[in-house]
Amino acid sequence: MNVKISGIGYYLPDTIETAEDLSKKINKSVDWIISRTGVNQRRISSIDVDKMGAIAAKNALNKHSEQPDLILNASGVGKQVIPDTSVFFQKELGFDGIPSFSIHATCLSFLVALNVASNFIQLNSYKKILIISSDRGTRGRNYNEAESAALLGDAAAAVVVEKSDENENSKIIDYTMKTYPKGSDLTEVRGGGTNLHPHDNKTTFSDNLFSMNGPMIYKMARKTVYNQIQQDLNKHNLIVDDIDLLIPHQASGLAVKAYSKFGGFNKSNVVNIISKTGNCVAASIPLALAIAHEKNMFQRDDLLYFIGTGAGLSVASMLIKY
Amino acid sequence: MNVKISGIGYYLPDTIETAEDLSKKINKSVDWIISRTGVNQRRISSIDVDKMGAIAAKNALNKHSEQPDLILNASGVGKQVIPDTSVFFQKELGFDGIPSFSIHATCLSFLVALNVASNFIQLNSYKKILIISSDRGTRGRNYNEAESAALLGDAAAAVVVEKSDENENSKIIDYTMKTYPKGSDLTEVRGGGTNLHPHDNKTTFSDNLFSMNGPMIYKMARKTVYNQIQQDLNKHNLIVDDIDLLIPHQASGLAVKAYSKFGGFNKSNVVNIISKTGNCVAASIPLALAIAHEKNMFQRDDLLYFIGTGAGLSVASMLIKY
Repeated sequence: MNVKISGIGYYLPDTIETAEDLSKKINKSVDWIISRTGVNQRRISSIDVDKMGAIAAKNALNKHSEQPDLILNASGVGKQVIPDTSVFFQKELGFDGIPSFSIHATCLSFLVALNVASNFIQLNSYKKILIISSDRGTRGRNYNEAESAALLGDAAAAVVVEKSDENENSKIIDYTMKTYPKGSDLTEVRGGGTNLHPHDNKTTFSDNLFSMNGPMIYKMARKTVYNQIQQDLNKHNLIVDDIDLLIPHQASGLAVKAYSKFGGFNKSNVVNIISKTGNCVAASIPLALAIAHEKNMFQRDDLLYFIGTGAGLSVASMLIKY
Repeated sequence: MNVKISGIGYYLPDTIETAEDLSKKINKSVDWIISRTGVNQRRISSIDVDKMGAIAAKNALNKHSEQPDLILNASGVGKQVIPDTSVFFQKELGFDGIPSFSIHATCLSFLVALNVASNFIQLNSYKKILIISSDRGTRGRNYNEAESAALLGDAAAAVVVEKSDENENSKIIDYTMKTYPKGSDLTEVRGGGTNLHPHDNKTTFSDNLFSMNGPMIYKMARKTVYNQIQQDLNKHNLIVDDIDLLIPHQASGLAVKAYSKFGGFNKSNVVNIISKTGNCVAASIPLALAIAHEKNMFQRDDLLYFIGTGAGLSVASMLIKY
């Protein structure tokens, strides 16, 4: 697919919450927080996901005078149940009449949306697609579940996707996703839908908050992710050193480190932002891309490899020539 | 796009709630309910959206021994915030490892998902895609907002999408979507996300329920939908009588009637199920398709035209040769 990412932007809220700040709220020491999660600090947003996403989108659209002709929301949690958040992004951006919808695969929403967008570009359905991931995970923190509460942070990131010019090599080389429902209770916000409606007597306080069985996910994901990497590399006759930059979901400090510790990737080729941003749900992958872009960690024609897990449990990977 | 709908299934809960049953709950007469909404009765589900969707999916997959290789949830409201409902569909169906994600465009989710699925089929990414729309709108009824409370009903519907064989003419001829955020407050469930979290003091009882400004939507939508129909017909050199079957979103009795009253379509060519099922949110369009299919109202090579509005306000239309 001759598709390129033509714009990249992000938004990190100004307010920083350090491990020390959080320590009192979750009744754990700074050392416990950092050693368990790898998160030294995270951002806390005072504006909602639509405004956060619109700022990231404006940064991604910066050099473009033309409007996008499709807006995809690719976040983990919506602003509200109805309408879907893409509508509120468009409203904040001041556009009108642009088709908008949401793709939801929790932390993998961005990769799924990037693949869906590529199809549209490839088939000439749309010319300039804006994908926005904006998550405010700190709104759903459960202070009684210290580990997940210490992981989450707020952020938004956005990309613009267009067809590559004839003299450009940018393309999506491969994309794979697999979903294993036996992991469906490992990462949850059980409330907010038809199952445990806010008005139900049986809905508990914690049903409306984020819940995660970190050790079980890590156990289930490590092998699956490792196999996916081997499969992708073998399929394209690549070795780990052929990948110019690995951009993983920032699930936890442990999860990001595993790519170098067990996956064989050179540490300097793995984007690792989790200590400063935490796990920003669906915004994690595009934020890692955006920060690496800002730091000039990759350039045109580089081989970028995205990989991550999402609630489900799902695993997805994407290999692109940037 | 040489894509065909190869399987169709639906699920309607057994429990019927008549206008008379509802009359006491919303403090309105039977005549008021029927004249305002066109809904004589609706179904009330005692099982959740995942189980409802899985029954519809099994009916759609009935003649297929092979598993789908992609599962798309295309509903209006999820089972819970995280994971997305596609995971729970897969779990109920007893499958494992099939990529799954959700598409959310409220009442238009099915049309958007059908278009996304067609792209995947066209590009040989997947061979057999299962799309499930399952909504339990009665869980979100606000009895203090009589009109919208009288509109909603529960249902699920599913289709299987595959590539057409060489000797088949089935294809998606055209698809259009437009979103106008000035209508974003006309159809809402304001709670359940980051904006008005269930734990917020400012979140009211009605924020967690469905809210709809019927007259304003009708005013905004009628002209937009009418223009979309004219544009689609003109583009393909068609007149209304060339359409074998119009399958509209069952928004309200008034909205469905408008296609014959103002749109020029013959009443017998417009699928109208709202009096018996109500507005089943995203399940409405595939349910109308499934019931028309059961009644042999169309056959292979017929020209089917889907159209509807969704919260946003969005308008989408799709022309297919079945």
